[in-house]
Amino acid sequence: MVKKISELRADFPILDQTVNGEPLVYLDNAASSQKPKQVIQKLVDYYEHDNANVHRGVHTLSQRATQAYEATRDKVKRLINAPSEREVVYTKGTTEAINWIARGYAQKILKPGDEIVLSYAEHHSNIVPWQQVCEQTGAKLVYLDLNKRGQVELADAKQKIGQKTKLVSLAQVSNVLGALNPIKEIAELAHANQAIMVVDGAQSVPHMPVDVQALDIDFLAFSGHKMLGPTGTGILWGKRELLELMSPLDFGGEMIDFVELDHSTFKEVPWKFEGGTQNIAGVIGLGEAIDYLLSIGLDQIQAHEQALMADVLPKLQQIEGFELYGSPDPKDHLGIISFNLAGLHPHDTATVLDMEGVAVRAGHHCAQPMMRKLGVPATARASFYLYNTQEDADKLVDALQKTREFFK
Amino acid sequence: MVKKISELRADFPILDQTVNGEPLVYLDNAASSQKPKQVIQKLVDYYEHDNANVHRGVHTLSQRATQAYEATRDKVKRLINAPSEREVVYTKGTTEAINWIARGYAQKILKPGDEIVLSYAEHHSNIVPWQQVCEQTGAKLVYLDLNKRGQVELADAKQKIGQKTKLVSLAQVSNVLGALNPIKEIAELAHANQAIMVVDGAQSVPHMPVDVQALDIDFLAFSGHKMLGPTGTGILWGKRELLELMSPLDFGGEMIDFVELDHSTFKEVPWKFEGGTQNIAGVIGLGEAIDYLLSIGLDQIQAHEQALMADVLPKLQQIEGFELYGSPDPKDHLGIISFNLAGLHPHDTATVLDMEGVAVRAGHHCAQPMMRKLGVPATARASFYLYNTQEDADKLVDALQKTREFFK
Repeated sequence: MVKKISELRADFPILDQTVNGEPLVYLDNAASSQKPKQVIQKLVDYYEHDNANVHRGVHTLSQRATQAYEATRDKVKRLINAPSEREVVYTKGTTEAINWIARGYAQKILKPGDEIVLSYAEHHSNIVPWQQVCEQTGAKLVYLDLNKRGQVELADAKQKIGQKTKLVSLAQVSNVLGALNPIKEIAELAHANQAIMVVDGAQSVPHMPVDVQALDIDFLAFSGHKMLGPTGTGILWGKRELLELMSPLDFGGEMIDFVELDHSTFKEVPWKFEGGTQNIAGVIGLGEAIDYLLSIGLDQIQAHEQALMADVLPKLQQIEGFELYGSPDPKDHLGIISFNLAGLHPHDTATVLDMEGVAVRAGHHCAQPMMRKLGVPATARASFYLYNTQEDADKLVDALQKTREFFK
Repeated sequence: MVKKISELRADFPILDQTVNGEPLVYLDNAASSQKPKQVIQKLVDYYEHDNANVHRGVHTLSQRATQAYEATRDKVKRLINAPSEREVVYTKGTTEAINWIARGYAQKILKPGDEIVLSYAEHHSNIVPWQQVCEQTGAKLVYLDLNKRGQVELADAKQKIGQKTKLVSLAQVSNVLGALNPIKEIAELAHANQAIMVVDGAQSVPHMPVDVQALDIDFLAFSGHKMLGPTGTGILWGKRELLELMSPLDFGGEMIDFVELDHSTFKEVPWKFEGGTQNIAGVIGLGEAIDYLLSIGLDQIQAHEQALMADVLPKLQQIEGFELYGSPDPKDHLGIISFNLAGLHPHDTATVLDMEGVAVRAGHHCAQPMMRKLGVPATARASFYLYNTQEDADKLVDALQKTREFFK
C-alpha cells in the first residue's frame, strides 16, 4: 500500500503546533527528523506489551522482544539492498559506526605512509576518527577538493587516490551543501587501488534510494534518528568478510561465546559487535520507520524534495543579500540549502526565523574544514524532508524577507 | 510526594497481561526492568512536542530538547550524590561505560606487570574489557575469591590488592547471587595502594541508595533500562580529575571544539565523551525514571525487596530438590535468587515456569567464571523489583512446585 506524500502530514503530530505564536515550520531535518505517530506508537506498544531483554531469554516476553529486535535487520537489508541481514550491525548512530570502522578495522590494517582519503566537505564524525587512526598508525590524511557544484571531482580523485591509498571515506550527500557525490565512480577508483570504500550515508539514506551492491561500496554508516527513527539508533553495514576482520569495540555480555579468566572468544558477525543491552526499543522503532519510508518509496521522497528545491531556490535567490553556498542548480541540493544574509550573523538570522516559527540551524554544522573552504565561520541551513510542504518553503521565503527588513 | 509501593503496580501497564493463559509474573528484572507509564508518556511527549537535535540549535524545539536532555544530569547527580552534574556522562549502558573506562583511562596508564583486580562474580562486561586492556598493556588480571555469602572477602582482598594493583573493578551487587560487596572497604584498600576503584552499579543503583561520595569510589557505571528507564541509556560517573585524564572514544560532532585538517581539540567534560547525536529521548526518559524512583525512595525500594526475599526464600527452600546458590540468608539476596531444581536443566525449568506465566531467566547470566565457581553450566534466576508483589512471590513458589511435579 503506497502512501501519498501529500497525505502524510497528519502522521506527524509534532508539526501541528505553534512556535512563538506562528505555525511551526520545521526545516532542521539534516540535524534530526521528526517521527510519525506509527513509530511513536511502536515504542509505546513495545514498552506496554513486549519489553524484555533480548536473546538468551526463554520466557515469552523475551522471545517476542528478540523477534522484533532481529526483524529490523531484514528491513535494513531491504532498505539498502544488502546481500544479507547478517551484515547489518546496530549502533547508536553514524558517529559510532564510523568510529568502529576506524578503530576496529582501519587501525588494524594501516601502516606508516598509508593514506586515508577524505574530502573537505566531511562532517567531523568522518574526519576526527580518521585523525585518531593516523595518530595511532602513522597513516596520513589526504583531502579531495570540491568542484563548484560542491561535489568531489573525479579528476582530482584520480590524482589523489593511488597505491598508497588504503581507505576512502566520503559522505554520499554533504550535510552543509546537500551536494551528491559520485560514490560509485569513487568506489571503483578505490577498488582499482585495492582500497576500501566507506560511505557516510547520514544525509543520503533517509532521502534517496541507496543500494550498496549497485554502488559496490564496502561499509555504509547511517543514523536512525535522521530517517524517522528513534534517537540513539544507527546502522553499520559492511561486507561480511570485512566485518569478520573487524574487531568489536564494546566487550561484554551478549557478544561473547566463552569467557575464561584471561581471555574470551567472540560470537559471529553481527552479534560480536553488539556487547551489552542494546537500544532494543529504538531498534524496533527504527524498523517501523523503515517500513514507513518503504511504504512511500525513497524515489518518491527524493522527487518530492527535488520539487521543493526547484521551487524554493530561485525564490530565495531573489531575496536581497541572499548568499547561497554551493551550486545554484536545485538538483545539487538534496533537500539542504546553506546560506547567509549579507551582513547578518547566521545565529541572528536563525533567531529571527524562529520568531516566525521557522526552525533552521545556524553554525558550522560540524564541518569546520568545509566552513574554511567556504570562507565563512558559519552558515544558516534549511533542510527539508518528506513532510515539508510548498507552504513550508513559502514561509521560509517570507520569513527571510521579514528578517531582511527587521535588520534594516 | 512520596508514592506508596503498594500503589504503583497500576503504573506498569505491561504487567497487566496474561502469558500462556496465566497472569504475567515478571521476575527477570536483573536483565531489564519494565517502564512506568510516566516514562513511556515522557517519550511520547518528547516526540510529539519537543523533538530536535540538542546543543547548537538556535530554534525553540532544539532549545527545549537541550534543556530537557541536560536536566537529566542533575537528576543523576541527586540519585548517586555526585559532587557535580558535570561528572555525569551519558552512555548507552553499563557495558559501554566500563569499556570507556578500560580503553579511555586504564589503557593509557597501565604498564606491564601492573595488576587489575576483579572478582569471580563479575559480569562479562566487567571482565572482557579488562582482558583487552591487559592484552594491550601487558597488565594482568587478579581475581578475588568469594566467601559463602557470595561476597568478596576483605581478608582475601588484603592479600591480593597491593603495590602492583592499579585498578580494582567490582560489581556492587552480583547479578547471579544478588550478594552485596563491601565496596567502601575495598575502595579504601584500593586507595591505600594508590589504585582506582571502579564500581559496576548495574544491579545496585536501581535497587538501593548508592552514594558515590560516601563510598569514596572513582568511577561508577550503571544502566538506565534496568531502573525503569528506556533501553539504550546508561551512565558513566567519574571523579572530575579522572574524567579529565580519560580520552573520549566516540570522535565526531558535538564533542569537539576545533577541527583542523590533521588534528582536533575536544570539549570539556562531560561533553567530550558524547560524540554524535545521543539517545536524546532515552536520556530524557531516564530523567523521568529517576524522578519516579526518587519519589518512592531507594531505601523504601530496598526494604520492599528485602521483605519479599525474607518471605520467599524459606518457602523456596522447602521445595523438593530446590538448590539455592549463594547464601541461605535472605539479606544476602538483593532481589536476586539463583537456583536449580535437582535433575532439571534450568532452561526446562524456565520453560515450564513460562507456561505458568512466570518469567525468569536461565543460563550463565553473562558470568561464566562465576558459573564455573558454582560448578554448574547454568542456573535459573528469579529477580524482583519494586512492582513485584507478595502474590508474584507466591506464584513463583507454586509454579516451581508444579514444575517439580511436571517432570516427575
